[in-house]
Amino acid sequence: MIKRMGERTLELTGMPRVVGFGSAVGKKEGEGPLASWFDKIFTDTTMGGETWEKAEAALQRKAVGLALESAHIESSAVNCVFAGDLLNQCISSSYGLRELGIPFIGQYGACSTMAQTLALASVVTESGAADIAAAVTSSHFCSAERQFRYPLQYGGQRTPTAQWTVTGSGCVLVAAYENGAFLAENESLSKIGAHIARQIGVAHVCCGRIVDMGVTDANNMGAAMAGAAADTIYRYLEDTGTKPEDYDLIVTGDLGKVGSQLLYELTEKEGVDLRPRHNDCGLMIFDLEAQDVHAGGSGCGCSASVLCSYILKKMRKRELSNVLFAATGALMSPTIVQQGESIPGISHIVHLVNCAD
Amino acid sequence: MIKRMGERTLELTGMPRVVGFGSAVGKKEGEGPLASWFDKIFTDTTMGGETWEKAEAALQRKAVGLALESAHIESSAVNCVFAGDLLNQCISSSYGLRELGIPFIGQYGACSTMAQTLALASVVTESGAADIAAAVTSSHFCSAERQFRYPLQYGGQRTPTAQWTVTGSGCVLVAAYENGAFLAENESLSKIGAHIARQIGVAHVCCGRIVDMGVTDANNMGAAMAGAAADTIYRYLEDTGTKPEDYDLIVTGDLGKVGSQLLYELTEKEGVDLRPRHNDCGLMIFDLEAQDVHAGGSGCGCSASVLCSYILKKMRKRELSNVLFAATGALMSPTIVQQGESIPGISHIVHLVNCAD
Repeated sequence: MIKRMGERTLELTGMPRVVGFGSAVGKKEGEGPLASWFDKIFTDTTMGGETWEKAEAALQRKAVGLALESAHIESSAVNCVFAGDLLNQCISSSYGLRELGIPFIGQYGACSTMAQTLALASVVTESGAADIAAAVTSSHFCSAERQFRYPLQYGGQRTPTAQWTVTGSGCVLVAAYENGAFLAENESLSKIGAHIARQIGVAHVCCGRIVDMGVTDANNMGAAMAGAAADTIYRYLEDTGTKPEDYDLIVTGDLGKVGSQLLYELTEKEGVDLRPRHNDCGLMIFDLEAQDVHAGGSGCGCSASVLCSYILKKMRKRELSNVLFAATGALMSPTIVQQGESIPGISHIVHLVNCAD
Repeated sequence: MIKRMGERTLELTGMPRVVGFGSAVGKKEGEGPLASWFDKIFTDTTMGGETWEKAEAALQRKAVGLALESAHIESSAVNCVFAGDLLNQCISSSYGLRELGIPFIGQYGACSTMAQTLALASVVTESGAADIAAAVTSSHFCSAERQFRYPLQYGGQRTPTAQWTVTGSGCVLVAAYENGAFLAENESLSKIGAHIARQIGVAHVCCGRIVDMGVTDANNMGAAMAGAAADTIYRYLEDTGTKPEDYDLIVTGDLGKVGSQLLYELTEKEGVDLRPRHNDCGLMIFDLEAQDVHAGGSGCGCSASVLCSYILKKMRKRELSNVLFAATGALMSPTIVQQGESIPGISHIVHLVNCAD
């Protein structure tokens, strides 16, 4: 059942379960601190594709394949997929998943897409509209650079506030769960140990509003997103009557160093100190100094690949059991930034809990 | 309650009600056969904006405003908005709706977006996740031309199969309804005559798969989408055990002349004759000969503005009472078409019924 809490939060009382997930990343990500947590590291970041866009589509296809494998199910068992990415017309998603035959619901939430897709997948499974739904997103450094900034060959200088778009993808499969059993009538879910399949649940979701901090610098995405993250996190805590200390980890998507600092300042004004529990996927995926990524990692694939590796695996190991996943997106478009507009941000939250026996 | 029917169709037993809708279009649309049905016709298609992109954002903002007005509710009563458009990073939606403060869930379904957003808005209200949800999309001839084809100033020749992107937007507001009453606790809905507010319901939705017919001609979108329309319509009829004759109107989004013909041929192979009940928003919105639009209208705003004017108003007049709305999208991106890829299509269905006493 879906229960409304406060202004914007939804409680999913049946807690749809994360029955499978997969992550695939590029070479640079595979050299970072989370290397050992990823399912697949491509040392050739073309992934065998002829273009960067086709490479990114292949990355997303791989993540979905890994998630299906980990849940021991076929794509035909998935009732719908919520997918999106940063590229114009979300082509990594449509071309990456074209052959799967799963009903496709294209999403655009910029770098908040992993939380947006996972929130929708959880809501539709909890509502009875789907037995199993998939959530997936990706980004690729090379396709993002040429679309949003400069051709790679140009060798543009990066500002200190700039972030490095992660080459990576993550996919989560959620299944409806009620009274100790999966609703899916197929036997596939029973193939994985039921204790594993039912271990991680989605307890709450909270969809964000567009928040515009007036940032016009396309090299400072962290600042553009911090306001949205603060807004949604504050709203969620108020709606649920909880404090940061109630969670093991409050993880934002890709605020990086600049955005995270700003997030602390903004939430402090509301009397909330996030520091003791907060981390940011953009700070976790790279060694900022050694890998020369300036303010941190970014891109839809950043929070997606960190969620679908380190975070969910730590939850399966029972080393994390109560995580607020707040992916963050800068709704940035070169077209309208060149027309003098500021860059609005958005952030959605998914609350993951460990339901291990 | 949401009930699964067959492979992919969802029955919304409470039938969320269309409590408000609004349409806004440009000059050329205001000179076409549906002129008298639109709520607002802008004779200046810049809508006072400095750029075509800002014009389109203004168009979308207008449609949402008209829908809110028609339902006599404030934006604060809307729990979430599903919005998307054709522009890179869906900027008409994010910039058009930025100031509204409604939780925002960005969508990308190309020209199928009106059905996609309306399907999701209906599912979330029926599930209890929202009392009132909005669905909105738009397109603008000038912003679409320069993004997908040529700068307007270039004066490119149009092929006979080309369609004319509609400058238009449509917004629908749906509200949860159960046991003869709205679930929304605010009194706003009672301000409109309850018999009007509860008149049109969403009975079923069916989400489509990506279907690629191998079309590589960016000037033949109708052909690229026909396969997806045939797939979803056929699936829906099978799932629900109904025939075309059971509906007053089966209306596709923007197949135009070429795509509609192809749709007939494809469904005929499955033994389904759509001709007696079928029409296409792209054929309805323009006088193809007199307005020189070649194969018909297209764009997200085509099906959106036709739905939110002629179709829903005809339903309120009780002249239509059983409509299958099958918006159709070509997931076209200049980037990947230039890389030699074909253009996949998608189509989603929303089944609207007249619940008048």
